[in-house]
Amino acid sequence: MSKTQPARGMRDFLPEDVRKRNYVVGIIKEVYESYGFEPLETPAVENLETLVGKYGEEGNQLIFKILKRGEKLDLNDKELADLALRYDLTVPLARVVAQHRNDLPRFFKRYQIQPVWRADRPARGRFREFYQCDVDQIGSTSMLVEAELCSAVSEILTRLGFDDFVVKFNNRKILEGMLELVNIPKEKYADVLVSIDKLDKIGIDGVYEELISRGIQDNQINLLESFFNPEWKSSLKSKIAKKVANPKFNSLALASLSNIFKDNIIGSEGIEEVKKIVSLTLNTVVSSHLLFDNTLARGLSYYTGAIFEINVPDLAGSLGGGGRYDGLIGMFGKEQIPACGFSLGLERILVVMEERGMFQKLIDEGKLNSNSADVLIACFDESLITDCLKLAEELRRQDLRVAIYPEAKQSGKPYKYAEQIGVPFVCLLRDAEFAENKVTLKNMRTGEQEIISREGVLMRIKL
Amino acid sequence: MSKTQPARGMRDFLPEDVRKRNYVVGIIKEVYESYGFEPLETPAVENLETLVGKYGEEGNQLIFKILKRGEKLDLNDKELADLALRYDLTVPLARVVAQHRNDLPRFFKRYQIQPVWRADRPARGRFREFYQCDVDQIGSTSMLVEAELCSAVSEILTRLGFDDFVVKFNNRKILEGMLELVNIPKEKYADVLVSIDKLDKIGIDGVYEELISRGIQDNQINLLESFFNPEWKSSLKSKIAKKVANPKFNSLALASLSNIFKDNIIGSEGIEEVKKIVSLTLNTVVSSHLLFDNTLARGLSYYTGAIFEINVPDLAGSLGGGGRYDGLIGMFGKEQIPACGFSLGLERILVVMEERGMFQKLIDEGKLNSNSADVLIACFDESLITDCLKLAEELRRQDLRVAIYPEAKQSGKPYKYAEQIGVPFVCLLRDAEFAENKVTLKNMRTGEQEIISREGVLMRIKL
Repeated sequence: MSKTQPARGMRDFLPEDVRKRNYVVGIIKEVYESYGFEPLETPAVENLETLVGKYGEEGNQLIFKILKRGEKLDLNDKELADLALRYDLTVPLARVVAQHRNDLPRFFKRYQIQPVWRADRPARGRFREFYQCDVDQIGSTSMLVEAELCSAVSEILTRLGFDDFVVKFNNRKILEGMLELVNIPKEKYADVLVSIDKLDKIGIDGVYEELISRGIQDNQINLLESFFNPEWKSSLKSKIAKKVANPKFNSLALASLSNIFKDNIIGSEGIEEVKKIVSLTLNTVVSSHLLFDNTLARGLSYYTGAIFEINVPDLAGSLGGGGRYDGLIGMFGKEQIPACGFSLGLERILVVMEERGMFQKLIDEGKLNSNSADVLIACFDESLITDCLKLAEELRRQDLRVAIYPEAKQSGKPYKYAEQIGVPFVCLLRDAEFAENKVTLKNMRTGEQEIISREGVLMRIKL
Repeated sequence: MSKTQPARGMRDFLPEDVRKRNYVVGIIKEVYESYGFEPLETPAVENLETLVGKYGEEGNQLIFKILKRGEKLDLNDKELADLALRYDLTVPLARVVAQHRNDLPRFFKRYQIQPVWRADRPARGRFREFYQCDVDQIGSTSMLVEAELCSAVSEILTRLGFDDFVVKFNNRKILEGMLELVNIPKEKYADVLVSIDKLDKIGIDGVYEELISRGIQDNQINLLESFFNPEWKSSLKSKIAKKVANPKFNSLALASLSNIFKDNIIGSEGIEEVKKIVSLTLNTVVSSHLLFDNTLARGLSYYTGAIFEINVPDLAGSLGGGGRYDGLIGMFGKEQIPACGFSLGLERILVVMEERGMFQKLIDEGKLNSNSADVLIACFDESLITDCLKLAEELRRQDLRVAIYPEAKQSGKPYKYAEQIGVPFVCLLRDAEFAENKVTLKNMRTGEQEIISREGVLMRIKL
């Protein structure tokens, strides 16, 4: 007898789960398509060399590798694997763009909703197979791209029923300017950004200790601290908690930073880009959600400009994030091609929606099916099974979802089964009645039962 | 610079491909759901032990195995892998049913559309990652299940635009009866069935040679041959070619077999089951496609009753197949639970639809989108970019898919880009016009261009 659990950190999705997941994915697709993004799918399996070295040292360790097969497998070989499971959707996109550059339009707008796999230690809310919902625009350096992406994800969250999300944003050039101003050596930029990224998690003292251990001087840290002063941070947090419209806050924050960067080229560039995004999104669906946060750093090393992260008050992590990465595609092709994207975490969105009871609301409003069929047809007499099939065919043609109870002569059981699968109506065929073209229809919610004409079934159910 | 090809035998699906795939998958889902089947999803990765030993010796070789990680990896270990990629959707289903037996309804009707992976040698039409579209009903031995499954797949193919498919069917009990009658030893049943399964591929002489090499006697083969006499076979083939309605043919075939099996219990049982399916599907969507073929054997060893295979004249392989497997779930649980299912091969369906030009027809009929947006908005003047965003938001709210050209002041280029992405309308914003609330709308198909009011855009495009 084999084990029946799924593999560690992986999950089976029973029908109720799949329906919720499909509902959310459906909205995401619909909104992305309304913005002119086109669907792309890449294989779950990539050549190992495509992935290795793209996600940093820690990332390399988390890649699921596939054993070589047949003669190719040689135990003396340094590398036992030749293939690997997709780790994210950005590297495969970069590969596809480099491969198909000549077949793709000048601006390639694609979305991709597929699972990725990471050999992480499983934990609450952390799985080894999870879905990413990515949207990227390739080929343009215009800030309109950033504005459109923020607009699309805001639209998605709004349509899913979120009203309290915040799209925090910053720019890598601002961070770089900060590091330049306090004379951090270039080779330490990545490390320092990773520490700053943890501000929310480990607090200002934790960040201080980390920076000291990375060899940053006390006076440099004090200078850095003035950029992300605690008052500002806490004011930012209360903005998030109070769901206040933010354009004014953004302007104030930007004004004070502009001054600091007046003699710093890269920092000033960052400020200009941020201002541009703010002005482009003014009075759109995004503007009341957009919040400038100059401490936002994001973990990934390939970002070169704008960076984003979406938060809701009741989730420690983020619902998604993204940014501009103008250098990644060049790793696969001859050409540097600018790119900017956003990734929504399906699992995170589902967790919050579940905890807030948002699915129950959708079910109550009739927007999400929670049952497998609109009606269950059953027959009391074996001889009527063929008629069950025919009636089912008729009703399906009129857009009802129809299940048939597969066994006859067990009059009580169909009702029990209907309750089990949550079907609201049972239509029972009995010899005597059916001879007169009549059936028994039971409303499982009210318990009412009536004998009606076969033709009347559809109307009664659709009411 | 990294390689840009996908892994061997795997494919990237560009937007045009994904749209076609999604169209077909959409119809399959819709029909399965109209029959009361519910969606199930299982992880791409299973514990290796879940899969090993379920697909025969040849199958075992084709499983993609995942290398153990970290300390778990020991080169002296016999087994370097602990996980494996999903090989089909039936074994995971059996695992899930055994695991969740108490939470699932008495009759569990599920569909599952997910990719599977096999380390097969890639060839034309044979890939290492491909999608299966499975539908199974668990928990009933009623032949109504078989009838409903045949009905559902027939409905799917009909709705996709196929009118010339044949659902060939047979029953493992009939095959077993045949083998009993000619005194084949039980341990050779599986081998002999595999040979018989090749009748279409290698002809009667090829099957003869294989059977001799497997130690079957000449006189036994002569007896077997009388069951699948060539005249019958060729009459069957012409039926398929001529797309003739088959109920009468089925009855004749069955009558002649009934006689042969009059003293054979298992064979007679098979005949009764086949008759039952024929009678249940009489006058339904299936009946004109159902064709009894007593030589149909199917490769998989776990079938116990009805077996099916779907063919079209212009494809050597099958579009799908299935059958009853009342013993498989017991391999995972304490209980034997009856089950019957069908699997459609998405790639096969797509190949035939592409070759027959069925997608072009769907595009021409407006049933399948071939473009990324309904309109492209562009602005001649940088100052109008925010207005582009606002107009886009307006039009999207009215259910148009809207793309924005991300750069200004390049008046010729938006048209070129619109052609590239196949967008039928370009809406151009110019300072002077827009001040009067007017825009330039160009119909890319006709080349016509007109200056109209902003409010008129929607109507002109929807016409």
